[in-house]
Amino acid sequence: MRRLPEMPGLHSAEAFNPAFLHAFFERAKAVETRPGEFEDALRGRVIATVFEEPSTRTRLSFESAALRLGAGVITVADPRTSSASKGESLRDTARTVGGYADLIVWRHPADGASRLASQFAEVPVVNGGDGRLGHPTQTLVDLYTLWREWGQIEGRTIALMGDLNHGRTARSLAWGLSLLGARMVLLPAPGLAWEEAVLDRILARVDYRRCSVRHPMFRSWTGKEKATLIEPRSLVQGELFGRDEVELNHLDALYLTRLQRERGAEEAMASRGYGGLQVEQLADPLLKQTLLLHPLPRREELPEAVDEAPGARYFVQTRMGPIVRQAVFLALLRPDRWSLPALHPLPAGDPDPGLGTCPNTNCISSPEGIPVPWRVEGRHERHFLCAFCDAPLPVEYAGCRSTRKLHPVHSPKVMRILPENLRPFRERHGAMEAGYEWSGG
Amino acid sequence: MRRLPEMPGLHSAEAFNPAFLHAFFERAKAVETRPGEFEDALRGRVIATVFEEPSTRTRLSFESAALRLGAGVITVADPRTSSASKGESLRDTARTVGGYADLIVWRHPADGASRLASQFAEVPVVNGGDGRLGHPTQTLVDLYTLWREWGQIEGRTIALMGDLNHGRTARSLAWGLSLLGARMVLLPAPGLAWEEAVLDRILARVDYRRCSVRHPMFRSWTGKEKATLIEPRSLVQGELFGRDEVELNHLDALYLTRLQRERGAEEAMASRGYGGLQVEQLADPLLKQTLLLHPLPRREELPEAVDEAPGARYFVQTRMGPIVRQAVFLALLRPDRWSLPALHPLPAGDPDPGLGTCPNTNCISSPEGIPVPWRVEGRHERHFLCAFCDAPLPVEYAGCRSTRKLHPVHSPKVMRILPENLRPFRERHGAMEAGYEWSGG
Amino acid sequence: MRRLPEMPGLHSAEAFNPAFLHAFFERAKAVETRPGEFEDALRGRVIATVFEEPSTRTRLSFESAALRLGAGVITVADPRTSSASKGESLRDTARTVGGYADLIVWRHPADGASRLASQFAEVPVVNGGDGRLGHPTQTLVDLYTLWREWGQIEGRTIALMGDLNHGRTARSLAWGLSLLGARMVLLPAPGLAWEEAVLDRILARVDYRRCSVRHPMFRSWTGKEKATLIEPRSLVQGELFGRDEVELNHLDALYLTRLQRERGAEEAMASRGYGGLQVEQLADPLLKQTLLLHPLPRREELPEAVDEAPGARYFVQTRMGPIVRQAVFLALLRPDRWSLPALHPLPAGDPDPGLGTCPNTNCISSPEGIPVPWRVEGRHERHFLCAFCDAPLPVEYAGCRSTRKLHPVHSPKVMRILPENLRPFRERHGAMEAGYEWSGG
Repeated sequence: MRRLPEMPGLHSAEAFNPAFLHAFFERAKAVETRPGEFEDALRGRVIATVFEEPSTRTRLSFESAALRLGAGVITVADPRTSSASKGESLRDTARTVGGYADLIVWRHPADGASRLASQFAEVPVVNGGDGRLGHPTQTLVDLYTLWREWGQIEGRTIALMGDLNHGRTARSLAWGLSLLGARMVLLPAPGLAWEEAVLDRILARVDYRRCSVRHPMFRSWTGKEKATLIEPRSLVQGELFGRDEVELNHLDALYLTRLQRERGAEEAMASRGYGGLQVEQLADPLLKQTLLLHPLPRREELPEAVDEAPGARYFVQTRMGPIVRQAVFLALLRPDRWSLPALHPLPAGDPDPGLGTCPNTNCISSPEGIPVPWRVEGRHERHFLCAFCDAPLPVEYAGCRSTRKLHPVHSPKVMRILPENLRPFRERHGAMEAGYEWSGG
Repeated sequence: MRRLPEMPGLHSAEAFNPAFLHAFFERAKAVETRPGEFEDALRGRVIATVFEEPSTRTRLSFESAALRLGAGVITVADPRTSSASKGESLRDTARTVGGYADLIVWRHPADGASRLASQFAEVPVVNGGDGRLGHPTQTLVDLYTLWREWGQIEGRTIALMGDLNHGRTARSLAWGLSLLGARMVLLPAPGLAWEEAVLDRILARVDYRRCSVRHPMFRSWTGKEKATLIEPRSLVQGELFGRDEVELNHLDALYLTRLQRERGAEEAMASRGYGGLQVEQLADPLLKQTLLLHPLPRREELPEAVDEAPGARYFVQTRMGPIVRQAVFLALLRPDRWSLPALHPLPAGDPDPGLGTCPNTNCISSPEGIPVPWRVEGRHERHFLCAFCDAPLPVEYAGCRSTRKLHPVHSPKVMRILPENLRPFRERHGAMEAGYEWSGG
Repeated sequence: MRRLPEMPGLHSAEAFNPAFLHAFFERAKAVETRPGEFEDALRGRVIATVFEEPSTRTRLSFESAALRLGAGVITVADPRTSSASKGESLRDTARTVGGYADLIVWRHPADGASRLASQFAEVPVVNGGDGRLGHPTQTLVDLYTLWREWGQIEGRTIALMGDLNHGRTARSLAWGLSLLGARMVLLPAPGLAWEEAVLDRILARVDYRRCSVRHPMFRSWTGKEKATLIEPRSLVQGELFGRDEVELNHLDALYLTRLQRERGAEEAMASRGYGGLQVEQLADPLLKQTLLLHPLPRREELPEAVDEAPGARYFVQTRMGPIVRQAVFLALLRPDRWSLPALHPLPAGDPDPGLGTCPNTNCISSPEGIPVPWRVEGRHERHFLCAFCDAPLPVEYAGCRSTRKLHPVHSPKVMRILPENLRPFRERHGAMEAGYEWSGG
């Protein structure tokens, strides 16, 4: 197992930062408005699309983007003909395809597959959707669709509705919107809310507060009139600070998602009491002049009668797909001519055999049979996460490789250890055996 | 449901007209003889091939054509990975793919799918074969193969043989040949003749007459010595007008088709007494210097021993495939440089909920769950057809939107109503309720 | 059935010769070191990849090569959508695809499919792996990987290890190495050695001798300490000529292959007592500074711990894949600019109905239902082989078409008949009936 220094490519929305996003939007706009300028930008290059989970829509969008830049495309779209059917590891497949292409777009059912692949491919890997973790280019499409309408996303109120738990697009989008200072209303279909940890991680990273909001129409979407709202503290003024419930008269955008039946949310919409959006609801002030987005494909949650609504933008999203992905390819393959501010890197520590396997059974480390590499985040204490899938790791103690001192993981002293000196342990006993000296909290 | 103004692209051989065809043949010849001239004609463009029914041959032929013009190709060739498997409508798929490509080639098992797709894609759609309706680019290949041999198709005698009922190529070809003034001998395998309506529609549109013809060899192909012949009235002179049976000494071309086992004609050739073409039959004067065509793939109806016959042209057809399809792409995407006379448009009226569903259960309107849009044709009275699949609609009455008068559909008065003012009804009662006044025949 | 004059394209390593190989290596090096020079070499051309047996790795490698030269690619990668599923013969598919592309890469489960296809395609066919016969471009990759390290392959000692019987790569490689004067140690996994005929044919063609060699480590790979070694007689000097067993202290390269479970070698490695390569074994002098090659994908025979070994070159092989295949395409499609010495042609005689079907049931002639074309080889007597699959044919007598004399096939007189005058017979009786006169040995 090699060390995991960094992960070239684009793996999750968590790597975005405001400077990157704003520069990216300008780039995408250039591609949209002056397509002829980029026709030969990737001539002589080859881009591979490896789709180990079917997604015609996403694949075609990436391939169209590559071809419009003059690149050639090689593709694996049929899981049954893939190397995996000969029992090959993702690591070997990544090394192999990396020898054939200048960039790989990878879609995979396991969380973190794209990050793992990027360690071995020796060319940039773009996540085309992996597990439940995220779908960062879809997020760029969604954000760009809003940005080209509004010019600025900060302070806008966007509601996320539907299957928040299984849908990776809403999860990724929330990261992006939080970086840009938007307010978000969470409208999960009954039983399909995020686990608390998802929201906690967003709140831990940006300066947001959480409160609640009410509207009668929410009942047909979530089963309740009350919903969670998260907003930048910077937007909250004066007396409002004290209130736990705020008023909501209008949504700037409504982001719908379908119930992901093929991901285990088997019960039909009806049995959950999830009515989706009804065309009559568009007359309510809440939805007047509201942009309607949906990553598609849709089901009953977005009836065709809504297509004629002035705010419908889901087919615009679709059209922005190849444009945004052209900008992604240019950012990764032509930094010489179209450089962008760097993505926020996701550093990864060495895998530590003592940590055992990742507790997330859908993590790519599990089918690959490899020890878990970790990374840390948190502003007040160190949280150890699986560097592939971001699952919290069962770390109770942390040592410093330099001083050889050991502390409880929640100790403020752990914050003072440089990340490269950190060594996590599940048990104090194991740390002692490894030669660390107990130092307390 | 949107209005259906016109259908950009190429959907059926019925849209051809003599001026278009002759100009098209010249274009195809230019592509065949000066390929280098067109190498960059579609550079920077993307063409999508969506094959929701397998057809490697047709798909490769289209893709080769696109690549030879410098276009990029994105493709969906595996029905199981298509958006349809996530329950998406053809309408949404068309809108989506239309955002990724400049032109879509669509193959689909349902009649009229290509026409429906073109309403939503916002880019031209080319029918790569849909249902039993037609396969217009194959017809262009077949016609061009004959034209490049003969220079002129008018007055030539071509026999259509095999599974005329299920094969879409023979049906499309008959439309094309009738526009160019050829004589046709119909030699269906036993039980596989066209429904009468197919022939009636051809005879209703061009100035042809129907008579019969005999030859001993027909027995091994159709089970009978007598066969139907249709010919332009302009070719019939003097006393021959009175005869119902004409003589036939020679065929200029024989167009063979295979029994379409995968389309429901399950019984084997043998059980039908269909012998196909035998190499010994080529010695008969009927088949001397006869061009032999077949859309391929073949089965027993065309033994390999025939390949050496001087008239065999089926592998020439195959080679003409990409050339003809290049000409189609140029006509649709580069009208600036290579304009052709317009196709005969197939206008479509608004769908009329009162008409119910299309009586053809294989019509695309059925899986899409949408009301039937209609169009009219006929030189002596108005025939209302499904605008997607051309099935006759059960229309008994027709009103005029301008005068609000209602007539029986067979009334000569209906011919005088402008198509845009027509409103069809199944029942007089419904028309009265809609505010129409009975005016009689 | 047409005559079989020659077989344009690249079908088996047996067509290689030293002049071709050395020129080829120089060409591949030019592609590797000056890629920009070849970017437009095949612009406007179309290359088809027809994979009737899954192999993502090989397909992507070829497609990457085509795209890097500016060619377009059309592909059939899903056997279920191929023309074969409509019951089409390989001959017809070859003729058809040959009308769409300038070159076809064909992979097929039957022995000799590539040769048969090349008879009908009218464009060059490159064997992408057919049956057990060979995989000539993989051999070029393997040889080039060695040549770029060593400069010269003559006199080097290479061991071939694993499933020699089912793996086509080792078989092809042995042909190539024998042409270049390398020594080879055969280390088949237990029960997976070549049939004697394979080795006999190599020894019959090049001036090699066969002896044996011992090493304790062989036991964990083959079950025995003793192994077969073949070497050029020119390398053997003085007293060594007399020895049947030679010493072996060091391998220059070790070529590992996996057990081909999907080809019928069902039993797992363990049950055969085949341990593969262990990382500890690398410390033995036998394997010091030994290059480690593997065509991939790998299984347990090549543990990941070996990846860090200084001699590991299997991911270099992978990277050389598209480079070598670019050189193949240039040799076949641009002889005007990058001509290479000709391949050694594999001439084929007329098929002879009296010879019946090929005794190899996996030969392509069997599903195609065609008589066996033959070719001859041998320096001391005529061996009649199936021209498709190289299986020995049951020929007992040979006649001369010119003199009409008949001889036993082993007779030296048969060596004096020109190949184009040869006519093979299974039985003397049949030869007499065909008008040949018995002339004896």
